[in-house]
Amino acid sequence: MSDISKSMALFAKGSAINSHGSLEFYGTSVQDLLEKYGSPLYVVDTDEVRERAQYFVNTATEAFHNTTVHVSYAGKALLTKRLVRIMLETGMHIDTCTMGEMRIALAAGAPGRRLVLHGNNKSYEELELAIREDFDKIVVDEPQEPARIAAIAKRLGTRARVMLRVSAGIHAGGHEFISTAHEDQKFGVALLSPTQNQTVPDFDNVSRETLEVLRTSPALRVLQEILKYPELELVGIHSHIGSNIHDADAFMQAAKRMMALRKTLYCTDAYTLPEVDLGGGYSVAYLEDEDSMDIALELQKLAQSVKETNAQLGMPMPVISFEPGRWIIAPTGCTLYTVGTTKTVQLPDGTYDSKGNLIHQRRYISVDGGMSDNIRPALYGAEYTAVLANRTSESEPVLSRIVGMHCESGDILVHERYLPQDITRGDILAIPLTGAYGRTMASNYNQALFPAVVAVSKQGSSVMLRRQTIEDLLEYDQD
Amino acid sequence: MSDISKSMALFAKGSAINSHGSLEFYGTSVQDLLEKYGSPLYVVDTDEVRERAQYFVNTATEAFHNTTVHVSYAGKALLTKRLVRIMLETGMHIDTCTMGEMRIALAAGAPGRRLVLHGNNKSYEELELAIREDFDKIVVDEPQEPARIAAIAKRLGTRARVMLRVSAGIHAGGHEFISTAHEDQKFGVALLSPTQNQTVPDFDNVSRETLEVLRTSPALRVLQEILKYPELELVGIHSHIGSNIHDADAFMQAAKRMMALRKTLYCTDAYTLPEVDLGGGYSVAYLEDEDSMDIALELQKLAQSVKETNAQLGMPMPVISFEPGRWIIAPTGCTLYTVGTTKTVQLPDGTYDSKGNLIHQRRYISVDGGMSDNIRPALYGAEYTAVLANRTSESEPVLSRIVGMHCESGDILVHERYLPQDITRGDILAIPLTGAYGRTMASNYNQALFPAVVAVSKQGSSVMLRRQTIEDLLEYDQD
Repeated sequence: MSDISKSMALFAKGSAINSHGSLEFYGTSVQDLLEKYGSPLYVVDTDEVRERAQYFVNTATEAFHNTTVHVSYAGKALLTKRLVRIMLETGMHIDTCTMGEMRIALAAGAPGRRLVLHGNNKSYEELELAIREDFDKIVVDEPQEPARIAAIAKRLGTRARVMLRVSAGIHAGGHEFISTAHEDQKFGVALLSPTQNQTVPDFDNVSRETLEVLRTSPALRVLQEILKYPELELVGIHSHIGSNIHDADAFMQAAKRMMALRKTLYCTDAYTLPEVDLGGGYSVAYLEDEDSMDIALELQKLAQSVKETNAQLGMPMPVISFEPGRWIIAPTGCTLYTVGTTKTVQLPDGTYDSKGNLIHQRRYISVDGGMSDNIRPALYGAEYTAVLANRTSESEPVLSRIVGMHCESGDILVHERYLPQDITRGDILAIPLTGAYGRTMASNYNQALFPAVVAVSKQGSSVMLRRQTIEDLLEYDQD
Repeated sequence: MSDISKSMALFAKGSAINSHGSLEFYGTSVQDLLEKYGSPLYVVDTDEVRERAQYFVNTATEAFHNTTVHVSYAGKALLTKRLVRIMLETGMHIDTCTMGEMRIALAAGAPGRRLVLHGNNKSYEELELAIREDFDKIVVDEPQEPARIAAIAKRLGTRARVMLRVSAGIHAGGHEFISTAHEDQKFGVALLSPTQNQTVPDFDNVSRETLEVLRTSPALRVLQEILKYPELELVGIHSHIGSNIHDADAFMQAAKRMMALRKTLYCTDAYTLPEVDLGGGYSVAYLEDEDSMDIALELQKLAQSVKETNAQLGMPMPVISFEPGRWIIAPTGCTLYTVGTTKTVQLPDGTYDSKGNLIHQRRYISVDGGMSDNIRPALYGAEYTAVLANRTSESEPVLSRIVGMHCESGDILVHERYLPQDITRGDILAIPLTGAYGRTMASNYNQALFPAVVAVSKQGSSVMLRRQTIEDLLEYDQD
């Protein structure tokens, strides 16, 4: 594959290089998009959103055949009313975790029964709305929460469906995972108590001893507490193990722990948890040499493992749930920027590029956005790639760094990328994989304005979230 | 000093603990503030803003007596119309670097002659507005910019006052600084060319050789280029060396380099640069055991050094400029949060606190804000402290971590702080030093809403920036 073909594989399916050498989406060039909607611009291929969402639902359903599968879209990745409707049409639920996310999903017409409320610190108003709207699940995050939810449900004269988030002691991200007895983080109720034996019980071959240990699990105690409230319907348990996970191994380990807990509750209280939610965290390829998680392969392995575990435990399969966010939306989006200043900085002592070559100059390419519209490089050290999007160039590729226009030297969008030497003011750069956690984490740092989010599809292009204006900013100022 | 007195020293001067044990500002308790303006809330003591701004202006003016001093407020730290007016009243200029910042300053009634435009990537519209409004300085950041500015000024039939940002090769932050010949960052034009001798010339004792080297300085070439344009008035050179700098040493080194460059331009072109801007970066104390830069002492040392340097060079003193942002505004502001969920996580293997004690549990205190209203802990690993603000407590202080309500485990506001064991839902926590880079870097992550920014002063309290509403968020959604 040529360099440009490798990079193009990271853009949404509706993209192509047209006969003039411009990146286009469903026949509309990036020049036309920026002319119509302004620069910088987030572009989301909504046909691909639908396709990826449907693919995930179908793939999970096939992998777990004969088992009900629920898939929830993690709305924190990118949430607009149109996206909510697309997800619902593919059979997905929507994960929310704040009043704002709930209200957007409801404004899009989502029925409460297709919504999930997460959160380590839910307000009274959030819980009340979720109960009133009959949310499919409210994910309990701490031991005091069942009482709060029950009290609100009682006041409203109704019941609430709740699930418990369990800290299973599995952490994953990248190619490795770790398993620990305990977790030092804000989410969930621990599966294992520290006053128990500090040796993690054997979850690969669940024995009488394993179940015995789990009888004093903090998570089990909260599940038993939930069962006491007539206002609460205990629908399941939830585990989320990390982000950007490449294979099923860690999910399999977490699932074994969750199934053992489910079995324990059956033993102690004769209650069969209807659902086990295995969370999200499926990787996508941000760079040319990376791979996304192979959903078909890995969910197949996971299904096999979960079925074996439940067979060993003598338990019926629960409903299995997944919460993809990034995996669905990141590859469908990109950001278009217009190049401004370019500057070559001499590095007399040299710097090594990622291939180990000693380089003596670095080209700084400034664009009209930056850390305000994509905080991930500065916040997580996240790496992105970029292509020259308005023309082809035969110019020699040189070590380049794409920086924003903010008054901060850490305002870097792409740390290292070989780009044509002749990139100059007015050129357009496209950075793929910004569909997730771009607009949703955007700030007004330096009074930068939120770029528009434009949908592209076979139907053409249209605005999902309009561009912010300076008048919007000034409107907050009361003086 | 007691623990609480030490912490209170970090809050704005208008704060006190009232007879009920509540934190109050000019007699208004935090409970009353949250009741009136909602939670979470940014609180800014505008009397102290005025006092600190005036103190900086007076102190710099006294330190450099017989020399004109310009002080510009770095608007990126926090910018509202009222703050602009306060700064102007103390004699300050306002630094801007985007259309949004310019428009806010102009909307507050700032005359262009009190405004500065910075930026590594200024748009045509930004330059045009700055020229049209007769900005005091447009800070040129790269070799191609003078031609752009001159062309716009010519079209408008006017002249533009420009200053050149020079990468002087001094980097500071914290207690140390480094000096290098070259800089690998997006801002400024290099003082020293890499094709010259790679040994940095002696700037402590500027000799004929030093000036000879500077005759081929890339920065000098751009200054000479600026002098060729009849539409440009070259007003000076600019150096910014870093952030959170504790003493004058690094500023002195940078100033020596800038004065040597100024002397060189005098030698080559008989042009005396009227002004040398030494930038910002003065430290503030974020924690009880930290110190702010002692402005009076350090500016005195700097003035002495700058005067000696110019005397040695046989040059008249230029106008000396400073650009404090954080130093003025950070200590005048705090954020008030309402406590929600609290959770104690067991750490069987233990963790060491900052004093080296082995601790076996950590209290997680969740509040109703988080990384959306203060990204600095997540982005820079910045440390803050916090106090229980609505009451006193005799309860034992325990190792606590203050976390937000976002769906992300890295959503931490205060990593480690001993806080009373009995802190519970409904309590109010106050985090000081959030006046800078809090609201200005805020995001809508998880559709969190921007908290209001409220001014407190002897005149009472009033809104500077109103709270965002969910309707504001929904208004961007065009579907």
